[in-house]
Amino acid sequence: MHRSRIGIVLVDHPAESYDEAAGFWAAARGSERRGDASDPDDPYEALDAIGGGIKLELQRTGSGTPARIHLDIEADDVAAEIARVVGLGARVVDHHEDWAVLADPGGLLFCVVPVQTGADFAAHATTWD
Amino acid sequence: MHRSRIGIVLVDHPAESYDEAAGFWAAARGSERRGDASDPDDPYEALDAIGGGIKLELQRTGSGTPARIHLDIEADDVAAEIARVVGLGARVVDHHEDWAVLADPGGLLFCVVPVQTGADFAAHATTWD
Repeated sequence: MHRSRIGIVLVDHPAESYDEAAGFWAAARGSERRGDASDPDDPYEALDAIGGGIKLELQRTGSGTPARIHLDIEADDVAAEIARVVGLGARVVDHHEDWAVLADPGGLLFCVVPVQTGADFAAHATTWD
Repeated sequence: MHRSRIGIVLVDHPAESYDEAAGFWAAARGSERRGDASDPDDPYEALDAIGGGIKLELQRTGSGTPARIHLDIEADDVAAEIARVVGLGARVVDHHEDWAVLADPGGLLFCVVPVQTGADFAAHATTWD
């Protein structure tokens, strides 16, 4: 038995447009910027949650990559969640130590990651047998 | 004075992969499917909200278009919200009667639409002067 939910919405922009786009989304959201995502080991920048504790994050992606949005499914058992969604038709694209990038049946990328939203996760997660 | 918030997360797939992808996201979300989005006048299919009343919707897009996710900003004054985000650096791509497609400074598409989440909108919207 494990739990999961769609917990993070990530707005990904390559280095070329990141700073301008990050400034835009922070202002559009009415949120303070709390970093600049320029550290290659931590290319993320969190804005205020958008409801139900769902995180809105900006990611600085590699030069020349397309701007896009992807979803993170957070799970209290990442391996079990990966197995569940693979059983539903997803495929693993890139498996990291404790998280993975997957593609849905139409090739759309998403991630399965550990729980990041604390009490909001428990309040909104679905339990799978 | 008007209010807005990020209210809808849309998963867009072209006709070629729509049905398989829609089935995947419904199962991944643990949500019933409530339509098939095959009506060209209504290519949307709603899944259960993902928290804070934020809607998760599937959209069947045109043949050959890329799979993608886009965000809808809902607003109680669409024209005022469009003017606000254009002032922050967005550009209007396609202006419909009561909603618009825009691009952020990095070319990422999003929409500004009328309020669709009822009481959840009022609970989570930001007020702009």
